[in-house]
Amino acid sequence: MSASWSTSLLTDMYELTMVEAALKHGTAERRSVFELFGRRLPTTRRFGVVAGTSRILEALERFVFSKEDIDYLHQQKIVNDDTLDFLKDFHFQGNIWGYQEGECYFAGSPLLTVEGTFAEACLLETVLLSILNHDCAVASAASRMTIAAHGRPCLDMGARRTHERAAVSAARASIIGGFKASSDLEAGKRYGIGTLGTSAHSFTLLHETEEEAFRAQVATLGPGTTLLVDTYDIPKGVETAVRVAREAGGELGAVRIDSGDLVAQAFKVRGQLDELGAKTTKITVTSDLDEYAIAALGAAPVDAYGVGTKLVTGSGIPTAALVYKLVEREGAEGFMEGVAKKSKSKSTVAGRKWAARAFDEDGYASEERLYVGSYEDFQKTLAAEEAEGTHLRPLQVKLVTDGNIDRTWYDESSLERAANFHQEVRNQLPYSAWRLSAGEPAIETRVIPLESASPLN
Amino acid sequence: MSASWSTSLLTDMYELTMVEAALKHGTAERRSVFELFGRRLPTTRRFGVVAGTSRILEALERFVFSKEDIDYLHQQKIVNDDTLDFLKDFHFQGNIWGYQEGECYFAGSPLLTVEGTFAEACLLETVLLSILNHDCAVASAASRMTIAAHGRPCLDMGARRTHERAAVSAARASIIGGFKASSDLEAGKRYGIGTLGTSAHSFTLLHETEEEAFRAQVATLGPGTTLLVDTYDIPKGVETAVRVAREAGGELGAVRIDSGDLVAQAFKVRGQLDELGAKTTKITVTSDLDEYAIAALGAAPVDAYGVGTKLVTGSGIPTAALVYKLVEREGAEGFMEGVAKKSKSKSTVAGRKWAARAFDEDGYASEERLYVGSYEDFQKTLAAEEAEGTHLRPLQVKLVTDGNIDRTWYDESSLERAANFHQEVRNQLPYSAWRLSAGEPAIETRVIPLESASPLN
Repeated sequence: MSASWSTSLLTDMYELTMVEAALKHGTAERRSVFELFGRRLPTTRRFGVVAGTSRILEALERFVFSKEDIDYLHQQKIVNDDTLDFLKDFHFQGNIWGYQEGECYFAGSPLLTVEGTFAEACLLETVLLSILNHDCAVASAASRMTIAAHGRPCLDMGARRTHERAAVSAARASIIGGFKASSDLEAGKRYGIGTLGTSAHSFTLLHETEEEAFRAQVATLGPGTTLLVDTYDIPKGVETAVRVAREAGGELGAVRIDSGDLVAQAFKVRGQLDELGAKTTKITVTSDLDEYAIAALGAAPVDAYGVGTKLVTGSGIPTAALVYKLVEREGAEGFMEGVAKKSKSKSTVAGRKWAARAFDEDGYASEERLYVGSYEDFQKTLAAEEAEGTHLRPLQVKLVTDGNIDRTWYDESSLERAANFHQEVRNQLPYSAWRLSAGEPAIETRVIPLESASPLN
Repeated sequence: MSASWSTSLLTDMYELTMVEAALKHGTAERRSVFELFGRRLPTTRRFGVVAGTSRILEALERFVFSKEDIDYLHQQKIVNDDTLDFLKDFHFQGNIWGYQEGECYFAGSPLLTVEGTFAEACLLETVLLSILNHDCAVASAASRMTIAAHGRPCLDMGARRTHERAAVSAARASIIGGFKASSDLEAGKRYGIGTLGTSAHSFTLLHETEEEAFRAQVATLGPGTTLLVDTYDIPKGVETAVRVAREAGGELGAVRIDSGDLVAQAFKVRGQLDELGAKTTKITVTSDLDEYAIAALGAAPVDAYGVGTKLVTGSGIPTAALVYKLVEREGAEGFMEGVAKKSKSKSTVAGRKWAARAFDEDGYASEERLYVGSYEDFQKTLAAEEAEGTHLRPLQVKLVTDGNIDRTWYDESSLERAANFHQEVRNQLPYSAWRLSAGEPAIETRVIPLESASPLN
């Protein structure tokens, strides 16, 4: 059977069995608020980067149970007939707030807040987590790499090192983290990302000599192309590359080095290129780079970084470890109550949170504040704090209202907007955010109960 | 734009620009042999597990350039019109040999050998690598976990911790590595994998009391269900769970513990269950498990392991780091020649390899042999070695002949067959294969040139 177009089965089975039990028990319709957040940042992340929100809205639009899906659930007896009837007509009709794509996040930041009946908010859990756990992990790694690159372009070349469909989403997330282009054509087609790439070692090996391979490439792609010079001997490769480009009437665009000691190679190759008068010819390096290798190349004469494995696998943190927790729900009496798990090491903070970032007098972020209580009280608090001179930026936007997706957050400009927004937001973080070493988050998170905080169950 | 049905753009752009340059230069049609292999195993892997071959055949069937794909390539000027004409009619017409799914592999093992024109073998590179790098990483991690579990069932619950589509493939790969079921419904639907799951903490929190939540679940799923007992206080949870199940007329199926010190908890909970007379009630644990945590739980009274993050992210090795290299190609004179890259730290062995595993007198695998040369010489060598008493098992099967996929390797029984085959093959490895610590591969790889090895370029 081929892959489903619908996204509703990209789901853990227990979401459906919980709905079944709640339907039977009469609790499926209880108003509920779930929050999606990370309990803490990984120790090597001074901040996280939100990516995937737009993909979530796309997935939500297709979160329906097709006839094929229903048939499968029926045949496998995964849920009973009443539940199948409920799923057949299912469309999410609740509300979703979230951090904008490109926003930075910290411990406890509610990246998404889903409000609806228990059943509808429960059904979305797995797919929301899958998308954000993947995309945020990649975008967060990408952002560290672009910090380390200090303005030199970083390019995604990781498609081959991850799942073929994850690669497409990873390319998109990398752009949010500041990458400039991707080698993945499907990402180019689907998200309008600029693509790049010229040739591999196999192309050189296909021909009798390196020179013949270079001639073939330059004849087709022009002297402005990037020639891969390390198949045999780098100095000879560089000399040949520059000569072949000139014979074709131009200066060589760039050389690519994909092996060896990149720092030493970059200096040698730059020296050779300059000696040959090829001062405009650039150097791209591409061998097993991560943010640390990029930082180490900071002083070397490198013009662009091609990053593969470490980008698409989150550079040591392949999943953002975000969770989705019920924080508030309607009680038997019809009132909303805060709820929290008491498990050791996995406890949660009850009550719905409104997030705002506080800034110091120099305009740098100083604290992530999570206000627990009503939206009205949150608004009043923002006004009161501003009056006292504390600048607070509210962090959540409304993505979905009564099931209607606000397409502002899911249109053709969403990716570019997210990338620009990330640059802006990252520049507001204190200097510690730019450290690559393990350590504390760039800013701390403080939970502040408002008067209207709902009673705890 | 929505995701492509075709798989041809799940590809690095340079595969297409190389084809363009080779077409123009007249070298696109040269017969070529590419091998897909890992240069070495990661230090914590005593063996790798082949998974994804069946998915590759599925992807190959859809490796066509649709009108939409061609339009994209044209609009973005990614390749010229001659190349677009070539791509429009493209169907792979070459041959593919490969290790069977479930097979163990070692340094240099040719997991796939692709023989065709340079152009057609080149175009497939990225998607072949994406699929195998992902699926082999997950299956290899899964196999270590099932080794550590010593026969207790391991269950995939990782969907939420990885890309939503990668999760489906990860579930499949985990079954090859010995897992017994998955929480992912799409994996169930698509691959016929058994699914499982009952409830989350949110279900307990939805209700006024834990007891009410348990009643709701047992009323729907029966007393044989698994109740999650760690939302508030475990001893109280266990007592309530057993009582509620009995009041519904049966003994509780299982309890699930998802937090805290699992070893200590398991002993306490088992003791409590036995004291309550619930001797048949099982214990499932599910908190951040990997192969080491599973091994540590070996002496604890646990009945099943639910594994999430570490399974789907390859337990520290999120990509199998497999590469795809041209090893032989037709020269200008029309003869096949071995080719190899000389780059420092990334050199390759020229010539097409035929793989066989040697066994010692006790029937345990002793060596991975890669014979370089013709198929006929390989067959002769196998016969000669057998005559001398060395048992050699040839490792490659023909998956694709002249573009025709052998559907034996891609039918409904392929997953179960691969899982069974892996058990069989793993049992043939020496004891060192079962070590979880870092170290040498379970067997070494030896490259053996045959007389017919093609001359080197």
